[in-house]
Amino acid sequence: MESILLHEDRLFPADEATRSVAKALYKEIRDLPIISPHGHTDPRWFAQNNNFTNATELFITPDHYVFRMLYSQGIKLTDIGVPRWDGGETEQDPRKIWKLLADNYHLFAATPSRLWLDTVFHDVFGLREMLCSDNATHYYDHITAQLQGDDFKPRALMDRFNIEVIATTEGALDALPHHAAIKDTPWAKRVITTFRPDDVVDASREDIVSNIEKLGELTGEDTATWQGYLNAIRARRAVFREHGATATDHGHPTANTADLSEAECIALFDKVRSGNSNPEEQELFRAQMLTELAGMSVEDGMVMQIHPGSFRNHNSQLFTQFGRDKGHDIPMQTDFVKALRPLLGKYGNEPNLDIILFTLDETTYSRELAPLAGHYPCLKLGPSWWFHDSPEGMLRFRHQVTETAGFFNTVGFNDDTRAFLSIPARHDVARRIDCRFLAQLVVEHRISETEAASIARKLTYDFAKQAYKLG
Amino acid sequence: MESILLHEDRLFPADEATRSVAKALYKEIRDLPIISPHGHTDPRWFAQNNNFTNATELFITPDHYVFRMLYSQGIKLTDIGVPRWDGGETEQDPRKIWKLLADNYHLFAATPSRLWLDTVFHDVFGLREMLCSDNATHYYDHITAQLQGDDFKPRALMDRFNIEVIATTEGALDALPHHAAIKDTPWAKRVITTFRPDDVVDASREDIVSNIEKLGELTGEDTATWQGYLNAIRARRAVFREHGATATDHGHPTANTADLSEAECIALFDKVRSGNSNPEEQELFRAQMLTELAGMSVEDGMVMQIHPGSFRNHNSQLFTQFGRDKGHDIPMQTDFVKALRPLLGKYGNEPNLDIILFTLDETTYSRELAPLAGHYPCLKLGPSWWFHDSPEGMLRFRHQVTETAGFFNTVGFNDDTRAFLSIPARHDVARRIDCRFLAQLVVEHRISETEAASIARKLTYDFAKQAYKLG
Amino acid sequence: MESILLHEDRLFPADEATRSVAKALYKEIRDLPIISPHGHTDPRWFAQNNNFTNATELFITPDHYVFRMLYSQGIKLTDIGVPRWDGGETEQDPRKIWKLLADNYHLFAATPSRLWLDTVFHDVFGLREMLCSDNATHYYDHITAQLQGDDFKPRALMDRFNIEVIATTEGALDALPHHAAIKDTPWAKRVITTFRPDDVVDASREDIVSNIEKLGELTGEDTATWQGYLNAIRARRAVFREHGATATDHGHPTANTADLSEAECIALFDKVRSGNSNPEEQELFRAQMLTELAGMSVEDGMVMQIHPGSFRNHNSQLFTQFGRDKGHDIPMQTDFVKALRPLLGKYGNEPNLDIILFTLDETTYSRELAPLAGHYPCLKLGPSWWFHDSPEGMLRFRHQVTETAGFFNTVGFNDDTRAFLSIPARHDVARRIDCRFLAQLVVEHRISETEAASIARKLTYDFAKQAYKLG
Repeated sequence: MESILLHEDRLFPADEATRSVAKALYKEIRDLPIISPHGHTDPRWFAQNNNFTNATELFITPDHYVFRMLYSQGIKLTDIGVPRWDGGETEQDPRKIWKLLADNYHLFAATPSRLWLDTVFHDVFGLREMLCSDNATHYYDHITAQLQGDDFKPRALMDRFNIEVIATTEGALDALPHHAAIKDTPWAKRVITTFRPDDVVDASREDIVSNIEKLGELTGEDTATWQGYLNAIRARRAVFREHGATATDHGHPTANTADLSEAECIALFDKVRSGNSNPEEQELFRAQMLTELAGMSVEDGMVMQIHPGSFRNHNSQLFTQFGRDKGHDIPMQTDFVKALRPLLGKYGNEPNLDIILFTLDETTYSRELAPLAGHYPCLKLGPSWWFHDSPEGMLRFRHQVTETAGFFNTVGFNDDTRAFLSIPARHDVARRIDCRFLAQLVVEHRISETEAASIARKLTYDFAKQAYKLG
Repeated sequence: MESILLHEDRLFPADEATRSVAKALYKEIRDLPIISPHGHTDPRWFAQNNNFTNATELFITPDHYVFRMLYSQGIKLTDIGVPRWDGGETEQDPRKIWKLLADNYHLFAATPSRLWLDTVFHDVFGLREMLCSDNATHYYDHITAQLQGDDFKPRALMDRFNIEVIATTEGALDALPHHAAIKDTPWAKRVITTFRPDDVVDASREDIVSNIEKLGELTGEDTATWQGYLNAIRARRAVFREHGATATDHGHPTANTADLSEAECIALFDKVRSGNSNPEEQELFRAQMLTELAGMSVEDGMVMQIHPGSFRNHNSQLFTQFGRDKGHDIPMQTDFVKALRPLLGKYGNEPNLDIILFTLDETTYSRELAPLAGHYPCLKLGPSWWFHDSPEGMLRFRHQVTETAGFFNTVGFNDDTRAFLSIPARHDVARRIDCRFLAQLVVEHRISETEAASIARKLTYDFAKQAYKLG
Repeated sequence: MESILLHEDRLFPADEATRSVAKALYKEIRDLPIISPHGHTDPRWFAQNNNFTNATELFITPDHYVFRMLYSQGIKLTDIGVPRWDGGETEQDPRKIWKLLADNYHLFAATPSRLWLDTVFHDVFGLREMLCSDNATHYYDHITAQLQGDDFKPRALMDRFNIEVIATTEGALDALPHHAAIKDTPWAKRVITTFRPDDVVDASREDIVSNIEKLGELTGEDTATWQGYLNAIRARRAVFREHGATATDHGHPTANTADLSEAECIALFDKVRSGNSNPEEQELFRAQMLTELAGMSVEDGMVMQIHPGSFRNHNSQLFTQFGRDKGHDIPMQTDFVKALRPLLGKYGNEPNLDIILFTLDETTYSRELAPLAGHYPCLKLGPSWWFHDSPEGMLRFRHQVTETAGFFNTVGFNDDTRAFLSIPARHDVARRIDCRFLAQLVVEHRISETEAASIARKLTYDFAKQAYKLG
């Protein structure tokens, strides 16, 4: 009997000829190992290998995709059990919270969250009916019970999910204890860190002054000076590389870069370190630092990821109560052409530089990003990101980028998630959509089926390993 | 014999499997009553119930979609009989004007105007051949003759069209005579007003000073003071509610909002009332007023509609001769993320607030509007608007919004028209396109056909009634 | 046996019903003569009618679409033999360069360059296998040998390609020797020039002062005065018209226009002529000149083409070594609504004015360009341009423009190329995509197949001749 939860042909186009090609392409790549070069899973899971607790703590309270949709329909975050920053009360009963999700599961129709959750429920937990009010208790009990088994420990799931390598993301000041714990074990090759220095680069943070001080303590460099600060960052990069990192990540509000003289840099850094910088100076400092960090990538070969364009913590009331990453980061218009020019003017033709660009502003795909990546040897395009990490968003990415940048200036898929159990589901969506896109090219006689099969494999596996130097 | 004017499967996709699902979904919702919660029909029609005059006055001279296309191809507005503001001459012979439309009907190929007109000609007037030079006279005579019948009076058409409720739009100073005329009749529930206070809020208008004075006279409030002015607006909202209004509407050039101190508000209001405000002050006043009006909605429960982004009266020569609403309002780039933040920072989490956002800048669908509506409980998204009220525009809206905001943060269809006879045609296009979109989700195994049927009904009927608090 | 290089149904949709209509439409227009009203071929070819040299000089070194993709993947421009500006060395062996293309031909999968090249290889040179490392030598030898034949001389190819008329593009100071050489021959009607005065209008050019002087020498006007300068431009327009020109072309960074007083113009012109203008003044001068040039078009009837939105020579290092047009011009966000208003306020309703607008910012299609062209009688929309001259780009153009501007406010296809041999391939892609778009309208019952056939012919042939006054 066919499952009503998950159809094996999901996401393939209705047209029979195209579907048949898509299925054939998919069959050849569906079981390739997962390369997860950018994400936000907790390294503690892999180092300590403890079981997860229950369905609610796994699927709802940490997933801002899920609770923001409930919130948008008038359900209070405290009723969803989202942890509070201000110490106020929040729902503690995981069953009550799970029931809220079940009662409102219809809200997720046609969203990627629904697709990911259904896939996890079906593939990981063997469930066969769609979540609803009536089966909420069964769902909760079934999932929570299974989670206690040895085969649901993080490392067992890594094997079951066929994840060859997964990158976590840590700040420059992170002591990397969990990566250190696996440093001389075979897991060191499978769980690696990524260097994200926003904590010591983003001068708009309230803790920037103390962070720069801590950076000095951690490295023994004199971060009261510009060169000492830069050297301290170099030192942290080296430590991250010892813990597996091959890449850095930069989540600035804009893609602005700058190329100031050293005297200007010193004056700006002193202002930042004084704690009295204004927003323009903070923006200029982030801009200059992107160029400095690109220079360090030329030196040490770390792949640079730039993720601009999010207006963080838009809902000021909610931010006060619940803090960061609560589903109210909103994309903004983003410019890359003028913004990246100072950096590219200095390092854009360096053979040893690799920069992967992401955007939340899809209008830049065909207008800015594909033309830039279709020219500069250092630039490649990351996959459709965050809000655009949907079947429609992935198709828009391929349709708008490929004509100008081709496939070889892209880097495969990133799951970019803290929802560990959804990783295979997310990669599966990307694999299906890529095969669908390729199948359309085949049936419209733009590439051969042999070419399509070769490209499908690259998009699924090879490009990610190459672009992130994971091989 | 099959009609050559209108095919029963129009707008459904060619793929047989998808078309078949789309048709099945459509069959279940095609005859649901029409909810028309936002539009520009003349309330006089429903109050006085007089016959319309002739085909030209019904279909051409009031429809800027139609005459702008003729004008774009070099046909003079005076030859189309568009009424002049400056008192100059204009064509008076409705038959000659009708012939112009017929001779140039090919210009409308693949536009929504063609679809709406053909549907009206076919469904309302029983015509079966496409309008052309040869049948122009027959068309004119046939339509004009039918318009004289009792079954073509506005109220009879309301019944025939199965319009359950229709909202008109009136300025804050409007005495609402036609709504008053039906106030204690059963028609009061079917024809309601909407409060659009741009006439007393948009400080760039030449008549703003006298309008604020009139507002005082009308309400007995002292509109020479900021609080008196706000109270006068509150009073007019109450009067509008007595005439059926459940919603307000705001057509500002931008979505900017502000949250000034009371002292700043008073100073700004005095400047506006002096008649000497500059464009920046006028923009700031509109911005502050959106926030004030949101506060009033929290108080009185009226649903707030924000329609930003039109550069009004772009063609200055034409404006001098013919005045407003003559087909030369042009969309502009629009920002919502920074623009709405002051309002949302103050009222964004109020459970009693409902704001419906519209845009003329489709780039904001996936980048700004869906993420905002997918988080803030007060925000919902109006349908694709004005230039984007086309089959393609509706599909782009669903494809770009649904993945992030789902269906439940949208509000069904608005016809937004002054062309009364086209209302069923417009709703029919929306119903067909929604069923087409849902059918694609079904055949790609993302939702079940049962779910799709339930959502189709909501998009057609339930969401509009709920979002606009209509019953 | 079916060719593996080029399928006769390429670019048609997979759905059988739609494909069948698309093929039927295409069959009727595929062999219509080519109208090429905007491009960059070298008039010397047609005047002197010499053979082309070899495959590399024909297909690689002059084609920035091709070498920018190779460069983006780390291949040096010097290894591709791109001529240097700075006198440095560059690869001279055309066979080695050709081998580089062959070895990397996979990079072009799904790009329009691949489609154009494959079509030329197949249709013009009779090749049947896709270019690859193994057949690189055979390809080079085969193409280079054929190029020596009389039937591969430029005029023979004009006939073989069925090009009825082709427009080249020359600067205001160009002496037009090659057009003069064919002036009184039958070829004068087939090879015409276009007036592109950026060299004497763009005040940011280093040679602007001397160019204005040269303009005076060439015309006998006193270009030290504003009126003399304008008259000199008028004089050059007349000379260009004598050499076949029916159109002008303007490649400004933005679409900004201005409408200054004569005193302001004189002051601004003096500043420009002094060589000390700043970037704001240079932008204002270009803006004012677009309005002046529109006024001249009202006088002399030349069709005005505006091509804004390219950030030229983005890669400053490469520019220093290799100069202009080396694949690093990058599109920018472009505004038309506010930018064009000064010009349109002055001349927008002139019956004798024709302006064709192009964009590199696809977000303006539905938001700005279609609404503007769907109103102003002087405005029409050029086809999807440059980076967007791809099957996907063409479909986006039609899908986003037609609903508001219809077909009759568009002007058919421009190949815009310096790659002469690819002209039939480029027009063929446009013809296929237009037929595909029309076929979808037919199968979705929005237009009849008869209408579609009529429109297909207009898009292919009639509109270009009419819009550019060619016939």
